[in-house]
Amino acid sequence: MNLPEIRSNYPGLKNGIQLNTGGLGLASTDVRDAVAANYRKLYDDFTPPIEWHRVISQSAEEARRKLAAFLGAGDSEITLMTSTADGYAAVLRGLPWEPGDEVLITSEENPMPYAAVTALAEREGAVVKIVEIDHDPSVILQRLEKTLSPRTRMICFSHVTTDSGLRLPAEEICRLARQRGILTLWDGCQAVAQFPIGLREMGCDFYASNCYKWLLGPMGTGFLFVRREAQEILRPLIRPRSPDGGATQYKLGHPAHALYAGVAASIELMENIGGPEAIQNEVTRKADILKAKLDDVAGVEILSSRRADSQTGIVTIALAGTDGEDLTRALRTRWEIGQRSTHLTDPVGVRISVAFYTSAEELESLVNAVKILAREAGH
Amino acid sequence: MNLPEIRSNYPGLKNGIQLNTGGLGLASTDVRDAVAANYRKLYDDFTPPIEWHRVISQSAEEARRKLAAFLGAGDSEITLMTSTADGYAAVLRGLPWEPGDEVLITSEENPMPYAAVTALAEREGAVVKIVEIDHDPSVILQRLEKTLSPRTRMICFSHVTTDSGLRLPAEEICRLARQRGILTLWDGCQAVAQFPIGLREMGCDFYASNCYKWLLGPMGTGFLFVRREAQEILRPLIRPRSPDGGATQYKLGHPAHALYAGVAASIELMENIGGPEAIQNEVTRKADILKAKLDDVAGVEILSSRRADSQTGIVTIALAGTDGEDLTRALRTRWEIGQRSTHLTDPVGVRISVAFYTSAEELESLVNAVKILAREAGH
Repeated sequence: MNLPEIRSNYPGLKNGIQLNTGGLGLASTDVRDAVAANYRKLYDDFTPPIEWHRVISQSAEEARRKLAAFLGAGDSEITLMTSTADGYAAVLRGLPWEPGDEVLITSEENPMPYAAVTALAEREGAVVKIVEIDHDPSVILQRLEKTLSPRTRMICFSHVTTDSGLRLPAEEICRLARQRGILTLWDGCQAVAQFPIGLREMGCDFYASNCYKWLLGPMGTGFLFVRREAQEILRPLIRPRSPDGGATQYKLGHPAHALYAGVAASIELMENIGGPEAIQNEVTRKADILKAKLDDVAGVEILSSRRADSQTGIVTIALAGTDGEDLTRALRTRWEIGQRSTHLTDPVGVRISVAFYTSAEELESLVNAVKILAREAGH
Repeated sequence: MNLPEIRSNYPGLKNGIQLNTGGLGLASTDVRDAVAANYRKLYDDFTPPIEWHRVISQSAEEARRKLAAFLGAGDSEITLMTSTADGYAAVLRGLPWEPGDEVLITSEENPMPYAAVTALAEREGAVVKIVEIDHDPSVILQRLEKTLSPRTRMICFSHVTTDSGLRLPAEEICRLARQRGILTLWDGCQAVAQFPIGLREMGCDFYASNCYKWLLGPMGTGFLFVRREAQEILRPLIRPRSPDGGATQYKLGHPAHALYAGVAASIELMENIGGPEAIQNEVTRKADILKAKLDDVAGVEILSSRRADSQTGIVTIALAGTDGEDLTRALRTRWEIGQRSTHLTDPVGVRISVAFYTSAEELESLVNAVKILAREAGH
């Protein structure tokens, strides 16, 4: 990849060191130009008989189709949303539940899915069970099988976990679920655009994500995948169910259509640099180098997986004897390195996001900062 | 009002004639600058230790409080949404229902609330009853009283109806409902910023609206009011209910925080020109002149109310012998006048939105166009 050229699309990279793509990805100049052009059309180019309002709805519809293709989903299986949370609302509240229905989550879910299944338990009498994650996918599968019961109704996992960035064996989990008539709902917000995703092939029923982390679209954009077959049981929250209505019937509000041109622009940009597979290779290469360098720093523990089948661009580290909150603050204030502390790992550490636009120099700066902090901590 | 100065804030007014504020209001230069500045901060000004992500969430929170004050609501009674529809989802799906519960709507609801209550009927066995509207508020109240039964659970009305722009006697309806323990949910999308609104005083339980029609905020913004007392029964869709959580616990997704600075900017702009009362006076004056001029055109029927207690800035007209669809197309293509045809009036007509930024010349152009069309239709 021609990194200088790629990086020139992201003006934000010129200020400080951005290693928090898992929090909020940078929107490129192209992405923001596409959004700004839409807003200009909508509000400045008021020129009947052209109805820009409709033109921009059409551009959002084009973005929706592009997103479906990018995700290996059918056109009628994707609806635009504003974030991951509204997708969870549409699914968890759109299905009928029985008291005692069991819902499985991982031990590393971010606050939204955790709150969503807790609410389900409170309201519908569902029972939440937790499956402990592991760097080894086969261990997760074994634990999952042990947790399944005849009352298991849904597996509700992050595709990539929020703190340590662990990639779960999604296809195997979906296969296991389908064999037993168990539904699957995935939180894809740390996964989408980190590696190739084929949602139909993966075999999930529901997959919700925002588009503003690794997909680098503008904030306020997201999507929900509802498998064609699952559309037969999921009821829209504010519309009568339409058998041929497709996934768009599950849309909850009326989002800012102007923003989705930014999602389309970001997908195009990613396709131009080789698509998700090239991105994954580039990120893996850089993350591996980072891990190797951090291995040499006394006191540093790498909490993320190093296995090819479960690692991602998230490299979470802890520094022995240093609280994660102090670590994150020091990196941020002393070296202008953006990242965040973890909430669910033990020990608490900091989450470093390595994106395709991340430079070797930025990772080198991080390593040097960690070295100094390790030394100061007496290692 | 200094109209030339006001109009200079809305570049879109320079192109064609914009009489469709009830469809999509124009966002002023100030509104769009506020949004653009937020996006710039978010993506360009990446400067740890400042976290622009949080700074912009704070600006959205300030917008939320400003909106609460603008609407006469308590700070803990308003949550930001993306549109009216997600507010309806949060309320209609957040309440427990019994089969046979009766929900009342008006005879002029737009497609979203209509679909939402139809879905409720299908799913929960609720019974939908329709109250015919009338220009005379006392007639509506009589019809409403006749429709009420011991099974009435909720009154779910537009504050201002979508096609003829009729303002309903909201305070009286809320009083009547509260006396009988009936909940009220209002669609405020044609009402907000047309006249002063005091939601606590009005006495409603729930009030949902977008901010991108008469409030002239950017698309993708809306709000939901949940009365403090109603928070005791409404359960959030994706969170456990928090007794002290306030209305924000009902937020469904994670909207584009950057956009809400535009809502705050639009409220400021409106306050600078005298606020909702001054806006109402200005619009009423212009709408009255328009109605008087249209009275003189043979074949034209004014479908909107002319009563002070139920009229708004919406002036809906029909032309005898001319289909509303032909009328809307002719106005749009031959005179570049933006408006829309009605779906629910009989006869079908066109909806003209008179906003505070509408000029006398624009209304004169409309009248002249209608005169020509009336003549062509043989009147």
